Amino acid sequence: MARPDSDLLTVIQERLRPFPRDHFLSVTDLNAQTARELLDLADGFVELNQGSAKSLDLMAGRTVVNLFFENSTRTSASFEIAARRLGADVISLSPRASSVAKGETLIDTAATLNAMKPDILVVRHSASGAADLLSQKVGCAVVNAGDGRHEHPTQALLDLLTLKREFGDVGGLTVAICGDVAHSRVARSNVALLSMMGARVRLVGPPTLVPGDADRWGCEVFHDMRQGLEGCDVVMMLRLQLERMQGALVPSTREYYRFWGLDREKLKVAAPGVRVMHPGPMNRGVEIDSDIADDPVISLIQTQVEMGVSARMAVLAGLSLRREGAGL
Amino acid sequence: MARPDSDLLTVIQERLRPFPRDHFLSVTDLNAQTARELLDLADGFVELNQGSAKSLDLMAGRTVVNLFFENSTRTSASFEIAARRLGADVISLSPRASSVAKGETLIDTAATLNAMKPDILVVRHSASGAADLLSQKVGCAVVNAGDGRHEHPTQALLDLLTLKREFGDVGGLTVAICGDVAHSRVARSNVALLSMMGARVRLVGPPTLVPGDADRWGCEVFHDMRQGLEGCDVVMMLRLQLERMQGALVPSTREYYRFWGLDREKLKVAAPGVRVMHPGPMNRGVEIDSDIADDPVISLIQTQVEMGVSARMAVLAGLSLRREGAGL
Amino acid sequence: MARPDSDLLTVIQERLRPFPRDHFLSVTDLNAQTARELLDLADGFVELNQGSAKSLDLMAGRTVVNLFFENSTRTSASFEIAARRLGADVISLSPRASSVAKGETLIDTAATLNAMKPDILVVRHSASGAADLLSQKVGCAVVNAGDGRHEHPTQALLDLLTLKREFGDVGGLTVAICGDVAHSRVARSNVALLSMMGARVRLVGPPTLVPGDADRWGCEVFHDMRQGLEGCDVVMMLRLQLERMQGALVPSTREYYRFWGLDREKLKVAAPGVRVMHPGPMNRGVEIDSDIADDPVISLIQTQVEMGVSARMAVLAGLSLRREGAGL
Repeated sequence: MARPDSDLLTVIQERLRPFPRDHFLSVTDLNAQTARELLDLADGFVELNQGSAKSLDLMAGRTVVNLFFENSTRTSASFEIAARRLGADVISLSPRASSVAKGETLIDTAATLNAMKPDILVVRHSASGAADLLSQKVGCAVVNAGDGRHEHPTQALLDLLTLKREFGDVGGLTVAICGDVAHSRVARSNVALLSMMGARVRLVGPPTLVPGDADRWGCEVFHDMRQGLEGCDVVMMLRLQLERMQGALVPSTREYYRFWGLDREKLKVAAPGVRVMHPGPMNRGVEIDSDIADDPVISLIQTQVEMGVSARMAVLAGLSLRREGAGL
Repeated sequence: MARPDSDLLTVIQERLRPFPRDHFLSVTDLNAQTARELLDLADGFVELNQGSAKSLDLMAGRTVVNLFFENSTRTSASFEIAARRLGADVISLSPRASSVAKGETLIDTAATLNAMKPDILVVRHSASGAADLLSQKVGCAVVNAGDGRHEHPTQALLDLLTLKREFGDVGGLTVAICGDVAHSRVARSNVALLSMMGARVRLVGPPTLVPGDADRWGCEVFHDMRQGLEGCDVVMMLRLQLERMQGALVPSTREYYRFWGLDREKLKVAAPGVRVMHPGPMNRGVEIDSDIADDPVISLIQTQVEMGVSARMAVLAGLSLRREGAGL
Repeated sequence: MARPDSDLLTVIQERLRPFPRDHFLSVTDLNAQTARELLDLADGFVELNQGSAKSLDLMAGRTVVNLFFENSTRTSASFEIAARRLGADVISLSPRASSVAKGETLIDTAATLNAMKPDILVVRHSASGAADLLSQKVGCAVVNAGDGRHEHPTQALLDLLTLKREFGDVGGLTVAICGDVAHSRVARSNVALLSMMGARVRLVGPPTLVPGDADRWGCEVFHDMRQGLEGCDVVMMLRLQLERMQGALVPSTREYYRFWGLDREKLKVAAPGVRVMHPGPMNRGVEIDSDIADDPVISLIQTQVEMGVSARMAVLAGLSLRREGAGL
C-alpha cells in the first residue's frame, strides 16, 4: 500500500479553505480571491494525482451522490474519481430521462436522495436553473455539473486551472471562445470566470450561434473566424450542440467545418504560442481538425481532463470543510 | 477526516445482535422481540446518519451485491448507501429484463454471483418468490428488496421505524392501508409486521384493488374511503401500480383520484394528529394530493426515506454478525 | 470488523511479483514460469475470498477503471469485486455502443479516461485488437477483458487456476475445446495458455465453426464429437455465439444440440474422472445439458467463476506492483 508524500499532504491541508458558499451553482459563487485559493489547492491535488498513491481521507465518512439526468461518461467519471480519491462514499445515479419528464419529479427525486443524508449532491440536468432549484429544496451542498444552456462552473474552474498552469496567470491573456456559443453553458461559465480573472474574452461564431445579447456579456463579438482569432493567446473551441438545436437552424457540418472548424490554416493569425482547448467530447472534423486536437504542444485538451479531477477535488473538499465548520 | 462520536459507536455495538435468520425474505423472519431489537439498533444508525461522519467499519472486508432486476433508483440507492456506510465493498447490478426472461437464468445469474463469494445478496425481482428461491441456491445471505406482489420486508421495517419514532409505540395505533392493495408487496409486508407489533390494520380500497381473501389477512376491509379513514392514526397510501395491471382493470386516474386520492377533505375524518405515509415514488394527483404529501407536519414521507437507510443498515449489520458467529 | 489472517497475508505478500509486462493483452504476455507464479498468488487470494474478511489494502490509493463497451455482468462484476477487495478505487463505465461506433471515438474515450490518471484500465470491446490499440495510447496499464474474437486472457488464466486446483498439474492432461471455436476468444486464449503449460489440446466442432487454419494452432482438430471427446480429461464447452454469426451460417439450435450439445451420453467416451467447464453464460439445452452443467462432481463451472475473482486479483496486484517498481 502506497501512501501519499507527507509534505504534499501538509501543503494540501494548509491550502484547504471552506468553500465560500453553501453550494457551487455558478462561477459567480466565486470571486477572484476565492478562485485563486481553489486553484492553489487544486495544484496540490494535481501533484497527488500524478503520483502512485492518490487517495486521501479528507472526506471519509461523507457521502457524495452523483445525479446525472443527462448522460456524460466524462464528467460523471471525473466527479466520481474525485470524490473517491478524497475518501468519500460515492454513489452514481442516472435516472432515465423518461421518468423525470416533469419538473415535479426532479424535485421528488432530489428530496428522496436528500433524505438519505448525502453531504454533496452533484447534479446535471437539461433544464437551466435545475441545480439552483434543487439547492433550495435540500439540506446538502449542491454542485452544478451542467444545467441546460446555463452554467457549468466546474468546467470553467478546470479550464482556468489549465490556463494558470500553462501561462502562469490569465490576467491580460486574450481568449477566443469559438463556435456554438448560443447553446453552450461552458461558454457562459468561462466568460464570467475568465473576465473576473482579468482575461480579455472574445466570442467568435456565426450570428445564428452567438446570442443577440452577447455584447452585454462584456466580450467583443466576431462573426468572422479570422478576425476573431487574430492575436489570440488561447482558442477555446465549443462543441457544436446539434442535439440542442431545432430543424431550421441546424447547419450542415461540412459547411460549418469550412467556415468555423479550427484547422492549422485558420490558427495562423493567432498569437505565437497560441494554445487550443475544447471541453469535449469533440466532433472531430466538425468544429476542430484532428491535426490540431492531437498536437502535443498546441492542444491542452487532455490536460483539461486531467485538471478536471483536481479542480473538482478542490471544490468537493472545500464544500465538505464548510459543512464541518457549520456543524453539518 | 471526521470520526463518529465514540459514545454513539458504543451504543451501536451494544445493540448489535445477530439477525434471527440466515436470510431476510419476509417479515415473518422476525418476531416482535427481534423486530424491536432491530429498531433500537436502527435508532443508533439514524443518529449516526444525521452527523457529519457517517461511515463505520462494521462490515469492512465484506462484499454486498445489489441485484436489481426491476429498476428502482430509490431502493437501490438506499441499500447501496447503507452498505457503504457500514464499510462493505458494494457492487450494484441491474441485469436487463430481456436477458433474464427465464427463471433458469435468474438462478444462473445468482449462482454466478454467489461463486464470487459475496456475503449478502440484495435482490429485487418481478416474480413473487424469487428471493426465496435464490436463498436456497446460494451460500450468502439474501435480502428480499421486493419480489413481485409478495413481500418487501425492509420497507415494512422502515415504516415501523418511522412510526416508532413518531408515536413511540405502534401498539394500539389504527393504521389504514389505502388504495391498490392487490398489487402491493408493501401492503402485504406492512399488514404482517404491524399486526405482529400490535397495531390495528385496515385495508381500504375499491373491490377491484383489494384481494378477495383480504379478510383472512386479519384486517378490517373497507370499500369506502371515508369509512376506512374514520378515526385512523396513520394513513398509509399505496402507489397505484398501473404497470402491474391488465387492460380491463386499469382505472381512469381522474376517477381514481376523485374516490381514492387522499386530500385534506378526505383526511378530516381521521383522528386528530393523523400522519400520512407513502412508500414512493408517488403519483401526485392520483393517489395523493401534493398539499398532503408536502405538509411538513402531517406527511412522514421524507422521514420514511431517511429511516430506510438506517433500517437497512440494521439488517445488513445483523446478517453480517450472524455470519461471523457461524464462522462464515 | 474482521481482519484477514496474518499468516495468509504473509503468504500473499511473499508470492507477489511484478507482472511481467506493462499490460495484460494476451496470454503470450506470460510464459510458463510467470503463469505459475500468478497461479500461486491466486491460490492465496482464493483462500482469502473464502474467509469472512476479504479486503486488503494492496492497491489502496490506486484507481481502476472498468470500461466495458460490450455488456457483461459476469466479467465486469468479477473485475470490480477483485479490484475493490484489493482496496483500489474502482469506477465502472459502460459506454453505449451507439456512441462508440467509430474507432476514433474509442481512442478519444480512452485518452479522456487516461487523463484522469487511472492506474489500470480494464477494457472489453467487440473489435479484435482494441485493447492492444488502447495500450499504445495510454499511460496506465491495460487489461484485455475480451476483444472481439481475439483474446480473453484472464479467462484462460482462471481456467488454468481451476484445472490446477482440480488436477494439481495440467501437464499431460488432454483438453477438448468444443463447439463454436470460430467465434471464441476464450478458445484462442485457452489453446495458447494450455499448450504453453504442457496440456494436449483438441478442437472439436463442425467445420463451419472451426477455423480453417486451426491445425496451425498446434491442436488436433475433430469434426466428430465422439472422436473428439474420446479419452479426454477435460471438456471445455464454448458458448454458441449466435450474436456474432451471419444469416446463412446460423445453425438450428435443436440440430446443434443433437450433434454438439454435451450430455451424459456423449461424455461416456471421455476419460474416467472427466471434468466439464464452460466460460458462461450458458445456453442450456443448446451447447450443454443442465444435467451435466449442474453435476456437483463433473462440472467445474461454478468453480471457474470463483477462480475468476482470485485470478484477476493476482493480475491486478501484479500490474500494480510493477508500476510501483517503475515509480508510477
